[in-house]
Amino acid sequence: MRKGRFNKPMAEVAQRYSASVSFDWRLYPYDIAGSSAHAAALAAAGIISADERDKIDNGLRAIERDIENGKFKWDESLEDVHMNIEAALTKRIGAAGAKLHTARSRNDQVALDLRLYVKAEIAEIGARLRSLQTALLNLAGQHVDVVMPGYTHLQRAQPIFFSHYLLAQIEAFERDVERLRDCRTRTDVLPLGSGALAGSTIVLDRQSIARQLGFSRVSQNSLDAVGDRDFACEFLFCLAIVGMHLSRLSEDLIAWSTSEFGFIEFSDAFSTGSSLMPQKKNP
Amino acid sequence: MRKGRFNKPMAEVAQRYSASVSFDWRLYPYDIAGSSAHAAALAAAGIISADERDKIDNGLRAIERDIENGKFKWDESLEDVHMNIEAALTKRIGAAGAKLHTARSRNDQVALDLRLYVKAEIAEIGARLRSLQTALLNLAGQHVDVVMPGYTHLQRAQPIFFSHYLLAQIEAFERDVERLRDCRTRTDVLPLGSGALAGSTIVLDRQSIARQLGFSRVSQNSLDAVGDRDFACEFLFCLAIVGMHLSRLSEDLIAWSTSEFGFIEFSDAFSTGSSLMPQKKNP
Amino acid sequence: MRKGRFNKPMAEVAQRYSASVSFDWRLYPYDIAGSSAHAAALAAAGIISADERDKIDNGLRAIERDIENGKFKWDESLEDVHMNIEAALTKRIGAAGAKLHTARSRNDQVALDLRLYVKAEIAEIGARLRSLQTALLNLAGQHVDVVMPGYTHLQRAQPIFFSHYLLAQIEAFERDVERLRDCRTRTDVLPLGSGALAGSTIVLDRQSIARQLGFSRVSQNSLDAVGDRDFACEFLFCLAIVGMHLSRLSEDLIAWSTSEFGFIEFSDAFSTGSSLMPQKKNP
Amino acid sequence: MRKGRFNKPMAEVAQRYSASVSFDWRLYPYDIAGSSAHAAALAAAGIISADERDKIDNGLRAIERDIENGKFKWDESLEDVHMNIEAALTKRIGAAGAKLHTARSRNDQVALDLRLYVKAEIAEIGARLRSLQTALLNLAGQHVDVVMPGYTHLQRAQPIFFSHYLLAQIEAFERDVERLRDCRTRTDVLPLGSGALAGSTIVLDRQSIARQLGFSRVSQNSLDAVGDRDFACEFLFCLAIVGMHLSRLSEDLIAWSTSEFGFIEFSDAFSTGSSLMPQKKNP
Repeated sequence: MRKGRFNKPMAEVAQRYSASVSFDWRLYPYDIAGSSAHAAALAAAGIISADERDKIDNGLRAIERDIENGKFKWDESLEDVHMNIEAALTKRIGAAGAKLHTARSRNDQVALDLRLYVKAEIAEIGARLRSLQTALLNLAGQHVDVVMPGYTHLQRAQPIFFSHYLLAQIEAFERDVERLRDCRTRTDVLPLGSGALAGSTIVLDRQSIARQLGFSRVSQNSLDAVGDRDFACEFLFCLAIVGMHLSRLSEDLIAWSTSEFGFIEFSDAFSTGSSLMPQKKNP
Repeated sequence: MRKGRFNKPMAEVAQRYSASVSFDWRLYPYDIAGSSAHAAALAAAGIISADERDKIDNGLRAIERDIENGKFKWDESLEDVHMNIEAALTKRIGAAGAKLHTARSRNDQVALDLRLYVKAEIAEIGARLRSLQTALLNLAGQHVDVVMPGYTHLQRAQPIFFSHYLLAQIEAFERDVERLRDCRTRTDVLPLGSGALAGSTIVLDRQSIARQLGFSRVSQNSLDAVGDRDFACEFLFCLAIVGMHLSRLSEDLIAWSTSEFGFIEFSDAFSTGSSLMPQKKNP
Repeated sequence: MRKGRFNKPMAEVAQRYSASVSFDWRLYPYDIAGSSAHAAALAAAGIISADERDKIDNGLRAIERDIENGKFKWDESLEDVHMNIEAALTKRIGAAGAKLHTARSRNDQVALDLRLYVKAEIAEIGARLRSLQTALLNLAGQHVDVVMPGYTHLQRAQPIFFSHYLLAQIEAFERDVERLRDCRTRTDVLPLGSGALAGSTIVLDRQSIARQLGFSRVSQNSLDAVGDRDFACEFLFCLAIVGMHLSRLSEDLIAWSTSEFGFIEFSDAFSTGSSLMPQKKNP
Repeated sequence: MRKGRFNKPMAEVAQRYSASVSFDWRLYPYDIAGSSAHAAALAAAGIISADERDKIDNGLRAIERDIENGKFKWDESLEDVHMNIEAALTKRIGAAGAKLHTARSRNDQVALDLRLYVKAEIAEIGARLRSLQTALLNLAGQHVDVVMPGYTHLQRAQPIFFSHYLLAQIEAFERDVERLRDCRTRTDVLPLGSGALAGSTIVLDRQSIARQLGFSRVSQNSLDAVGDRDFACEFLFCLAIVGMHLSRLSEDLIAWSTSEFGFIEFSDAFSTGSSLMPQKKNP
């Protein structure tokens, strides 16, 4: 984004370094939803007309369809997902598109998109963890009386029920679900309206934007809101613990599937083989 | 801990490798509180007499006083804090001390101690964060109208109030307080009664132990309870984010105290000097 | 890779999990060079005919051209770069292509490809570091007498020459070049001939393969050779230190470009702007 | 270190934060060796007399003996190992002790001490790795014909010799020895003479100091020399890889010692037991 004071075009290597569209393109549904809500607020405040708002909305929806159908051309020289969509909108609907940037900065826009993305991912992962817990519970129900060795230090310690082992996994994933829920609460805050860092002199109805986008709260401090990525760190931490739980379960299953342990056998549908050793089956 | 099947003494190098008392000694108040609650439950179940329980309690209290006064001799050959205290107790009060290990394993004992420790640390750190927030708020109150440059990319962007900057810090530390509170909820679970991994055939009143030790809930699955250290990872993650917030604030203050920025000056009481350059004052 | 003992097709989700071709396709030039050298060794040992070897070589070269021209179709169900190329070769030239897998496993093949890749990257990065050092040296030559403040703790300490600062950077990058050179020495070992883990009963001339592929040494132990990824860890460590050196230099330049320091100004060609604040210029 | 410009004593909390003597005391032999070499250079340059040099040397040796015998009192208010030793020296031998700081800063002193420490640790760890390799080689010699399953994905793959497995470990540790040797070369550089950052106007014979302390080279740039900790990062990286190799070997041995695998049994001298399960033996 270079206007005003620049006399030289950007060096190609600097442009490539700045560009993030090769990975942030996946924020497009959130960017479009955010722009749509922002347009509604601009219209409600009388800054754009109802007609302009409709044009923006229709334009954004057309762009979204193009992206979903693989017809949208991402341009690296436009740096990121936000600029790509804004440029495309202005090209399609003219002046109304350019007005969309009123009372908004890329700083609060990217904060918004990332929050919407993390909220959506938490919902998706939470649902998958629930499915996994259900599968483990069903398996426990089918083998409720099967006794197996319980291990400490990989040495046989005391007999346990296989179902007891499976229920232990469910407990761990339950904590993951709770942790993600707590992370979601802290992610569920609308940053829009914070501008680049100091807010905006144009006052929009932030509560209404929050409602439209499904946020429970609005941020209290513009400096904090544009800089805060704690929720992303917390989300990654939650995923790391989920990963650890999955890894522990997998390692147990792999040990049990050895010919030495011989407790379980993986289905052919979830095994790989060897190019050199046709007798092999790998978990 | 070696009984029963061992014919050879432990190699000295293996002993040194196993020993953890050089750092886990600081769990002693929690280990003692846990043992006291366990003794109460053993007495309530009729496994030890009221008299034995009193002996144990008095013995533990005497040991605690000795530790606090630096008179307790930690012995590395006794591996860890638990074995050191249990051995000292048995030496002081005889047979009753040895009975304390009934229906308990070091596995659920160490899980208990660590949970009590993390809960205590969260309380302490939470209080310090509250003090810091209060200090920042007072400072903001004293300089409510001071205007300063707001920066992005370390380049002057828009004027902001210094108090706005300080309130942004308070927001960040508020999230830290909330995160620690959520972590506390997941830490606040009694693991005692899980034994080594498979529980115990001796049934004690776990709800009563939980009440005595200040836990809100008891663990549901013994395998999960002895192995779960998620709460410790989550605690460390919370601290990492606190550290990041403190680091960001410090870096700003250090930049502002340079002769180039010249916004603030550190008190001599919080500065260091240079051995070679007497004119210097470092933040 | 599933032959022999499998009765069920692989589950689609397991296939997606196993597939690595979406990122390991970039190993193709090394995979092709390795296959070509392997074919030469098979021919020298009389396992394939000179004619078969020529067919393989021509086939591989045609595939390489197709990949470079974007005409090659990567198939995720063929898992990885090796299987994709081998399948394409067999389809193009028939039975001779299938013989290429004689006395070779994917295990030693992937170890080979990764070593060739790391060696090529080290050469490339070493050359770029040399360019950077030259640029710093030229800059130092142009400003040999410029005096500036030297800082400790971001506080002015003693005057230094700007050229002295630049030469300090050159020293740091020199260590990076040396570290990469040492890493290259440990990467420069041919693993081919190790099979899946236990070598091969078919003895090929490994020294000759090493010469053809530009390796100085051949691996001594097949188990070690297929499992060793130390060189990749070491390469990543070297890059992390390079990154730290670049980051330190960049942070200095950014501080110096502030209006408070005002030592330097970035060219417009290497600056970005702001959508909200047209007066801004960011490093 | 606060002289000159300070009007207020340091806050107790700031002092505690600054103090590093609780862990850097272990640098004392290197600090003393460095001071001794620096005194020799000061004497050679005529800055201190031969008599003063002898006093310094004797004083330092007496302090070293006191430290080794546990008679030296470390004082946290003197911040670090350097200031503690320097203050003790001045107290013992008077003015000559204070002259030791001529043409030296804590910045080049701490860089020196850390380099000497890392060099000593590399020598120690290298020797231990050599012992381990010899032990593995002897074990391989004793079991040269023992055949065992070779595993991939923990599934039996091809038969291998146990000695082949042991030799693979030796290869990995050989790379560790080489990596440490390369790290040592980069550590083996004398930083003394760099002052705080800009060198010193008093010119000492750095080559002679380097010889006395066993360094092969002297640093070329004072700014780089006081700031460079690459060698410490590289040392830690080398240790991380050693740790990984040891962990892999240990994990194999632990799996093989299970009742399911039953390949090996650990000596009682290297096993621990369980407080609850007297039949148990843990690796």
